[in-house]
Amino acid sequence: MHKSRVSAFVLDCRVDDLAAATQFWSQALGRPVTNSDQDGDGKYAELRTDTDEPFLLLQRVDHEPRIHLDIETDDLDAEVARLEALGAKRVAFIKRWWVMQAPTGHRFCVVRKQREEVGAHLNEWP
Amino acid sequence: MHKSRVSAFVLDCRVDDLAAATQFWSQALGRPVTNSDQDGDGKYAELRTDTDEPFLLLQRVDHEPRIHLDIETDDLDAEVARLEALGAKRVAFIKRWWVMQAPTGHRFCVVRKQREEVGAHLNEWP
Repeated sequence: MHKSRVSAFVLDCRVDDLAAATQFWSQALGRPVTNSDQDGDGKYAELRTDTDEPFLLLQRVDHEPRIHLDIETDDLDAEVARLEALGAKRVAFIKRWWVMQAPTGHRFCVVRKQREEVGAHLNEWP
Repeated sequence: MHKSRVSAFVLDCRVDDLAAATQFWSQALGRPVTNSDQDGDGKYAELRTDTDEPFLLLQRVDHEPRIHLDIETDDLDAEVARLEALGAKRVAFIKRWWVMQAPTGHRFCVVRKQREEVGAHLNEWP
């Protein structure tokens, strides 16, 4: 038995500096910036979300701007295998997470459990 | 005074038939399909969400696959003007909503109030 859920929507921004992008989305969505430099390398910023919501992140990228989703799980191997069986493909393992591609062409990430407490909208898989 | 919030994440899928795409995302995200043909023209499908979550929709499109977000509001003109002042541009008015483009290049939609009851995570703007 393992668990998963959508844990984040990530606004991939092709910019040199995330600050202006973060300000725009913070104001557009009415979400204060809670962390303007999540990993200390200027690559990620975070907007405020409540515990029953997926995280809202901004990521500095080199590719076209897009939004991707993260799925968090307590068993990375089992979740990636489950998604492969549904037709998704492994693209790359980066640091601690798998980048996958859906049959619809959307890239998404499968990541480890992101919050200490298990939150709302959780799936349990046999 | 008007209100807005993120009301939907929409999986834009470049496919002839949304059925397979809908099945994949339904199973990947553990969300039953609540409406496989929302407008009766095969263009939209909806996955189950709780009332404190944004809708999860699939849309059949002709462009590259992507995820876009919808912002719902009780005052379309005021919300579009607010977003323009932040740097977003109007792209097109379609049926009942505005397509806009963020300074980061992301397309998003500003739509009318989607749920009868005002839900969680709402912003009020002066």
